[in-house]
Amino acid sequence: MKDFTFYNPTRIEFGKGKENLIGSYVGEFGPLRVLLLYGSERIRRDGLFERVTRSLDEQGIAWEALGGVVSNPRLGLVREAIALVRKKGLQGVVAVGGGSVLDSAKAVAAGAPYDGDVWDFFIGRAAVEKALPVFAIMTLAATGSEMNSYGVVTNEATSQKYAIGSPLLHPKVSVINPELMASVSPAYLAYSAVDIFAHCLDLYFTAEYLPDYNAALIENILHTVMRTTAVLLDNPADYAARAEFAWASTMALNGLTFVGVSGNGYDTHMIEHAMSALYDVAHGAGLAVVLPAWMRWYQEKRPQRFVRFAEKMFAESNGEAGIDRLRRWFKAIGAPVTLAELGIPESGLTAVAENAYGLAENWGIADQYPVAAIVDILRLARE
Amino acid sequence: MKDFTFYNPTRIEFGKGKENLIGSYVGEFGPLRVLLLYGSERIRRDGLFERVTRSLDEQGIAWEALGGVVSNPRLGLVREAIALVRKKGLQGVVAVGGGSVLDSAKAVAAGAPYDGDVWDFFIGRAAVEKALPVFAIMTLAATGSEMNSYGVVTNEATSQKYAIGSPLLHPKVSVINPELMASVSPAYLAYSAVDIFAHCLDLYFTAEYLPDYNAALIENILHTVMRTTAVLLDNPADYAARAEFAWASTMALNGLTFVGVSGNGYDTHMIEHAMSALYDVAHGAGLAVVLPAWMRWYQEKRPQRFVRFAEKMFAESNGEAGIDRLRRWFKAIGAPVTLAELGIPESGLTAVAENAYGLAENWGIADQYPVAAIVDILRLARE
Repeated sequence: MKDFTFYNPTRIEFGKGKENLIGSYVGEFGPLRVLLLYGSERIRRDGLFERVTRSLDEQGIAWEALGGVVSNPRLGLVREAIALVRKKGLQGVVAVGGGSVLDSAKAVAAGAPYDGDVWDFFIGRAAVEKALPVFAIMTLAATGSEMNSYGVVTNEATSQKYAIGSPLLHPKVSVINPELMASVSPAYLAYSAVDIFAHCLDLYFTAEYLPDYNAALIENILHTVMRTTAVLLDNPADYAARAEFAWASTMALNGLTFVGVSGNGYDTHMIEHAMSALYDVAHGAGLAVVLPAWMRWYQEKRPQRFVRFAEKMFAESNGEAGIDRLRRWFKAIGAPVTLAELGIPESGLTAVAENAYGLAENWGIADQYPVAAIVDILRLARE
Repeated sequence: MKDFTFYNPTRIEFGKGKENLIGSYVGEFGPLRVLLLYGSERIRRDGLFERVTRSLDEQGIAWEALGGVVSNPRLGLVREAIALVRKKGLQGVVAVGGGSVLDSAKAVAAGAPYDGDVWDFFIGRAAVEKALPVFAIMTLAATGSEMNSYGVVTNEATSQKYAIGSPLLHPKVSVINPELMASVSPAYLAYSAVDIFAHCLDLYFTAEYLPDYNAALIENILHTVMRTTAVLLDNPADYAARAEFAWASTMALNGLTFVGVSGNGYDTHMIEHAMSALYDVAHGAGLAVVLPAWMRWYQEKRPQRFVRFAEKMFAESNGEAGIDRLRRWFKAIGAPVTLAELGIPESGLTAVAENAYGLAENWGIADQYPVAAIVDILRLARE
């Protein structure tokens, strides 16, 4: 194993009804006035908003609510939230929603106490030196944001979907109540499953050195996702499956799969972020298209890893068969697997590739991903 | 999955030479004067002591050293250390050694700021409300103490080997440098492997509810231990194997295997603690004798779990064969598997069982473990 530091101080409060205790969780960390950030107004209709605010009220924690976070969350709303936090002197952020809401909350937490513009953190112009405490109540399991220190936001003016990261951005407490996820649509369940796969497989295939322990840990996460997705598509109310799915999602991106690894990248995420930035496709949907295509293109670089994947995940004996089985599984659970399904035309591929190349430069992998190579990968997803 | 809270703020600094940075790690958390607690004088001979104290000196951190911690660490030395901490006004504890040293350090950290006697925490007479920060430099991978909030100490006056636990006792930073473990003897490597097995299997077999994800996580840890133990017995200098072994040891008892589980106990640890308390056997050696015996006795309570174990670990189709293979593997790596090898005579079994029963009462499982049942289990380890 390569040298590493592992540090993850987020406290997970997992289980039924835990969102009703959010007031006391926040209170432990001191904030007396918080921003309550959320997405659609659905949480007002289904009672979650009322339960969360009641818990805050009971603990004497004042709050200001701001909704409207969307998938591929926008920088505009983040800036609006920062202005609100400053104006009202808020001391913490409570995110209620999925990864987009929590990612936005992290950006707000870093941006509010910062003198410059929050986008500076995304483009490497500044490092986070101070952040408000962040708390989360998750309604979707996919991004792993609940137990890591990263967030992804789209700058709608520049069409850049970029990331912020700092050890200061670990949520203090994240509530994972699988019951809050029972109403996730079949499509979003599929997208979430794909997102978890991509978190794991970007690492699994790109790592120059991957300890056997890590490889098996990833395979366990993926088997758990496949098993529980099948159960949930059949019976969305199955609590045990919903819970294991949620926990697998958290474990896929809380840092443990990465320890001791060297040379890994977020290659498919890089390409998908460009697709989302330009075509506003759902992240998991974009990944479902990119991942098998990228695997076909990438497999010659590390053929043994692809054989292992095929064997361990699908009991197939060659790499190509493993990729094919994965793509068929994506299709079977209802995820798109072609660019056409996403509404991305052939004429748009160069723009997507150029946008992705900007990220590749940002992440230091531009030498591996010239624009022409990214176009080649995307072309493998034409049909 | 059952409801749970997961919180583990220990920072792991893993890799070559990281012990040379201990001064800066300690400095981040404020202590200016620390107790340096260790075991045998070997660390003075091999240069580790000098490197650690130089790092502390360089960062302006004053230290008082106290050695002499032994396997099955004694309450007497813990009390001596607490007196030293108070007399010199020390503000933190740096443990250099294996689990025994770190467990003692945790007891010192809790006991020093406490008005009463530190043993109160072990027998449930008091809860830890304040503790000095603890830091660790591990020279043995076995107990998992480097990333959890527990410690086990033996009260030599009462022959009780009991545990202390508190969220305040998570080490702030634990250094795991596999190179420091390269000189571990083959016997202690085997005992360590067995200890990791017991941490995992106590949970695996006793849990009323064990999510599939957790079961596979445990199997991955155990496969890693078996694979790397074989490599290390052949070539103790194999860094990659030493590193994976060390990390598997940490992962076996940092709380992640336990999330979402219900009804689990530390049944074999309970019996072994009694053996160590009365016969001072090495913990891992005692466990190697108890574990297969206990499994034979216990398997009828959860037969399917034993079949799974046999299949996943040894590709055997029935539970009994799995137990037999495990016992043979313990023997093959040089661990004892009979009471005779430990020097525990038939005439001593009742006393061991009575001592273990005290722990069973303490842990709330006395109804499952009357003295006669524990004697029955021990008798299965006669030959």
